[in-house]
Amino acid sequence: MGLDLLKGKRGIIFGALNDKSIAWKIAERAYEEGARFTLTNTLVACRMGEVVELSERCEAKLIPADATSVADLENVFRESMEALGGKIDFVLHSIGMSLNVRKGRKYEDLDYGFLNKTLDISAISFHKVLQVGYKMDAISEWGSVVALSYIAAQRTFYGYNDMADAKSLLESIARSFGYIYGRERNVRINTVSQSPTMTTAGSGVKGMGGLLDFANRMSPLGNANADECADYCLTLFSDFTRKVTMQNLFHDGGFSNVGISEHAMEQYNIGLEFVGESAVE
Amino acid sequence: MGLDLLKGKRGIIFGALNDKSIAWKIAERAYEEGARFTLTNTLVACRMGEVVELSERCEAKLIPADATSVADLENVFRESMEALGGKIDFVLHSIGMSLNVRKGRKYEDLDYGFLNKTLDISAISFHKVLQVGYKMDAISEWGSVVALSYIAAQRTFYGYNDMADAKSLLESIARSFGYIYGRERNVRINTVSQSPTMTTAGSGVKGMGGLLDFANRMSPLGNANADECADYCLTLFSDFTRKVTMQNLFHDGGFSNVGISEHAMEQYNIGLEFVGESAVE
Amino acid sequence: MGLDLLKGKRGIIFGALNDKSIAWKIAERAYEEGARFTLTNTLVACRMGEVVELSERCEAKLIPADATSVADLENVFRESMEALGGKIDFVLHSIGMSLNVRKGRKYEDLDYGFLNKTLDISAISFHKVLQVGYKMDAISEWGSVVALSYIAAQRTFYGYNDMADAKSLLESIARSFGYIYGRERNVRINTVSQSPTMTTAGSGVKGMGGLLDFANRMSPLGNANADECADYCLTLFSDFTRKVTMQNLFHDGGFSNVGISEHAMEQYNIGLEFVGESAVE
Amino acid sequence: MGLDLLKGKRGIIFGALNDKSIAWKIAERAYEEGARFTLTNTLVACRMGEVVELSERCEAKLIPADATSVADLENVFRESMEALGGKIDFVLHSIGMSLNVRKGRKYEDLDYGFLNKTLDISAISFHKVLQVGYKMDAISEWGSVVALSYIAAQRTFYGYNDMADAKSLLESIARSFGYIYGRERNVRINTVSQSPTMTTAGSGVKGMGGLLDFANRMSPLGNANADECADYCLTLFSDFTRKVTMQNLFHDGGFSNVGISEHAMEQYNIGLEFVGESAVE
Repeated sequence: MGLDLLKGKRGIIFGALNDKSIAWKIAERAYEEGARFTLTNTLVACRMGEVVELSERCEAKLIPADATSVADLENVFRESMEALGGKIDFVLHSIGMSLNVRKGRKYEDLDYGFLNKTLDISAISFHKVLQVGYKMDAISEWGSVVALSYIAAQRTFYGYNDMADAKSLLESIARSFGYIYGRERNVRINTVSQSPTMTTAGSGVKGMGGLLDFANRMSPLGNANADECADYCLTLFSDFTRKVTMQNLFHDGGFSNVGISEHAMEQYNIGLEFVGESAVE
Repeated sequence: MGLDLLKGKRGIIFGALNDKSIAWKIAERAYEEGARFTLTNTLVACRMGEVVELSERCEAKLIPADATSVADLENVFRESMEALGGKIDFVLHSIGMSLNVRKGRKYEDLDYGFLNKTLDISAISFHKVLQVGYKMDAISEWGSVVALSYIAAQRTFYGYNDMADAKSLLESIARSFGYIYGRERNVRINTVSQSPTMTTAGSGVKGMGGLLDFANRMSPLGNANADECADYCLTLFSDFTRKVTMQNLFHDGGFSNVGISEHAMEQYNIGLEFVGESAVE
Repeated sequence: MGLDLLKGKRGIIFGALNDKSIAWKIAERAYEEGARFTLTNTLVACRMGEVVELSERCEAKLIPADATSVADLENVFRESMEALGGKIDFVLHSIGMSLNVRKGRKYEDLDYGFLNKTLDISAISFHKVLQVGYKMDAISEWGSVVALSYIAAQRTFYGYNDMADAKSLLESIARSFGYIYGRERNVRINTVSQSPTMTTAGSGVKGMGGLLDFANRMSPLGNANADECADYCLTLFSDFTRKVTMQNLFHDGGFSNVGISEHAMEQYNIGLEFVGESAVE
Repeated sequence: MGLDLLKGKRGIIFGALNDKSIAWKIAERAYEEGARFTLTNTLVACRMGEVVELSERCEAKLIPADATSVADLENVFRESMEALGGKIDFVLHSIGMSLNVRKGRKYEDLDYGFLNKTLDISAISFHKVLQVGYKMDAISEWGSVVALSYIAAQRTFYGYNDMADAKSLLESIARSFGYIYGRERNVRINTVSQSPTMTTAGSGVKGMGGLLDFANRMSPLGNANADECADYCLTLFSDFTRKVTMQNLFHDGGFSNVGISEHAMEQYNIGLEFVGESAVE
């Protein structure tokens, strides 16, 4: 009962893990809107019952792949084109992981092996997806690629750690490769900078609960949720947005352009009154 | 033969003048997508045969108004709600004019009476539209307002003159009022920063021909045209983008994030070789 | 006991009102660093004892002027060049006022006459200063002009009201005129976006106390104060920064690039715990 | 005959290679302004006659180090503190290298081993410098760290290749670590985004000649050169800028905020007329 916004389009969706994932919501909504696509994730994730069930429900082939492996990505594109019967019209990249975050290494005490992994998995994988797709000429003219990002790429959120740097790198790759894909293939590449979202990945970030509340009160429309993010990404995959490229698009209820909201300040002031002192002399 | 993207939505479209206008294209496409709306423009414009013809073709009531007049704007909202049978779901603001540009006054020799008019017509009119709509409670929950802008709000384009300052002011108003409308009414307000477009207004800008060529070669997807801009604006009026607000969204084929493109540089280098000298010693 | 950073330079300083003013601090420090300058303010301000005392202490002629009057500004430049014996090397613009703020008119209920005054006094006055200086050829090659701004030009701070729009306009004027002054006169024009500061003007902004505390805890270096702002402005007037132009420079202890700091979050969380509920379901 | 702007300050300067290097100019000027510092570069560079000569002229100890080696960086800080007799007040990071650029690998055909090296040398080395300095508590309160960057971090310049992504990562690291250093140590960290400069590194970038000319005509003040960049960096090391942190500061003659200049357009139009056709139909 969609509008057929993506009717006839073929896609690849990276990163659907469970029904909290934004990628999961995008798969569900893209299916409703008439798209056909493949799903890809790590081998472990692909064996999870719910991922299998999603793939069946969406009639989507499930293709295990390590997104840092060029060979695996070549296979993803090859199998996807075979399964879907043609070049790919849209790609979603929703991949991020930091061992420094997981292992509790602070930003001033990073393990550099972990940092390399953070960048490789969360950002360079996007270049690999794009380079593989480019060399195989696997993305159709007027195709659309979206990677999910976060505003930590522009401003520091304590606790987000080296993922902030990874997101900056990711957004830069979107611009750099967006230029080439646009010029040579009429393909657009954008990042969507989403509100903090309580996905499985998000829940690992230090102080996530307070952050969600703060972001929600700062945002005039409140935090955007995963369902809303899915809808927004569909517009970027549709033919209505053909000339939008190389952009980082905030989908965040307005958070990015608020310095301080009345609601957040009220909450903040309660803390101030409670403690009865101010940091400003 | 649209997708019914805007089915059942009621709108007000400011600024459709002729078939080169972006507002005109938006009217045509919104109609196809199932929206009903009113058209408004100055009294003179409303008497032009083609505007009348558009209004008939789109079954849209034509309401003359001076967008700098609060009384006229009140009338626009009142008549629109009557004609459409309810609150307004979307508003397009596509209004801009500079007497300094028209009269050939350079930026270092502005007439300050003209500057006041530029700001009043091109930017403050947007505040008036929003304030009138707010006081009349005329915009529905999850409604969407878009104003058209240009990247001269961020970077200087010689010849764009005081319109650059007007666009900065316009974008600021979108943020400032977007915060309030979001918090109180769940309404979103954004600006779309469009490629230079050869509209009737655009054709008055000094050196527009060279600029169009430069922008086109700089943009990996080429300049976005008025039809494409219309499609993009429709997504912002639709229910797929409910949490996007207070943003300035570039619809420009990538121009905004290109420092120098290969195509523009090639063209530039021809000039360099032809002249046989370089500005850098 | 300065370093003679501005030795031999001639300046004009707009907006010194009392020893809380940033302009006041700039006057004091510029004097220490070897500059000579005039002070200008409204007629009422120029009659205040402390302003007279500052002018005497800094050997600075006091020139009353309405900064929205072209004739008055012509007089400021003429008298300044006479008093200082040559063209002007630096200009500070520190002027802002909103009757909407003063009279408690909310942003969704602006008086448009007041809005015009806000823009005229707080932003267009800067264009007038620059246009008058340009036409009189009163600013020396490699001169430097700075206007004081605030981050509300980019992000909404509830309560800052129409001053946000004025600051956006101000920063746009700095870019637009900076382009021309750079190209034609080798003069640079920048804005300094300063931490919220408890000046006489600042103290009129709604909720200023909470905002100062919030900004201070958000900023890794704490809020920048007026003395520090003065020092920073001196570098922009000096010969060490000749190629910096058309920029908006944040002098804010890092506030502008922090999404959420640990210190602000701690304070915020106290409020959350105290109230015992969260805005996020 | 300096002003003693940096009198008594102790520094470490990374990346002085020859008299075209910005780091070289900074060393010369810092010395004139009363600073004492060490110089560090790769072992090969440290053996070059001119580097030795610079170190002698500036009374600066020369410390060979691989900036990607934590052990080497620990040694740099240890030896510098010994040689200079205390904690470090300022650090300059001017390091960048891409094997993909050198070997002519295009951005759509990157060697991922080379990419890792680009990021490690050009960006992660900055994190290592900061982390080592942090753990050793080697940077004084109110110290200042600057890394040199380029606007390719924000906008695509064809030919700049994976260095664009490295600069984005570098600027993100400056923000992320700037937050921590600010909060814990009252140390500021910024990047300076410099005009394209004909250094030894810069001369490797494809199409550098045309780019320099274009940037020069786009910038109202013309391109900033290495000497001017040195002066600007000195202000950031001085006590006049204590509250500026986490910023990316454009030192580019205005380039970053120009969309199109009259001078660049004139040159561009010559190419258009010469070819006699336009890309816009």
